[in-house]
Amino acid sequence: MTRIVVTVMPREGVLDPQGQTVHGALERLGFDGVGDVRIGRRIELELEGSNPEEAAREMCRRLLANPLIEDFDIQVEGT
Amino acid sequence: MTRIVVTVMPREGVLDPQGQTVHGALERLGFDGVGDVRIGRRIELELEGSNPEEAAREMCRRLLANPLIEDFDIQVEGT
Repeated sequence: MTRIVVTVMPREGVLDPQGQTVHGALERLGFDGVGDVRIGRRIELELEGSNPEEAAREMCRRLLANPLIEDFDIQVEGT
Repeated sequence: MTRIVVTVMPREGVLDPQGQTVHGALERLGFDGVGDVRIGRRIELELEGSNPEEAAREMCRRLLANPLIEDFDIQVEGT
């Protein structure tokens, strides 16, 4: 098993309503000096097979990320 | 502004229904050899102030994470 970490974030320039909501909530809670807030997903996978990185890339293309509005990054963390 | 990355993941031993759903979807799409799948959040913050790491920790305690079911990790990525 290879451990893979996929990070999916809203693309630059794409509205991030979840981030905006959290930004507003932090301000209402009294936190000052909060700039940009962006929220994405961290997906930890254990994969078998000879090329887990390419498998993860295909998973991102087909299921894990929406390429219209999200960028993804794949890190191989080891076996 | 200091750039902070907060990672929030379901705690060890806590059911992760989102991860289970994605696991099932990957299998139905024909991906073999998928082991554990766990899904959490990546929150990128820009913070002003003298102790942005402590501010982020307080934000996790009060808003960003649910300590009953989630662990959080804070990384300071630089200014």
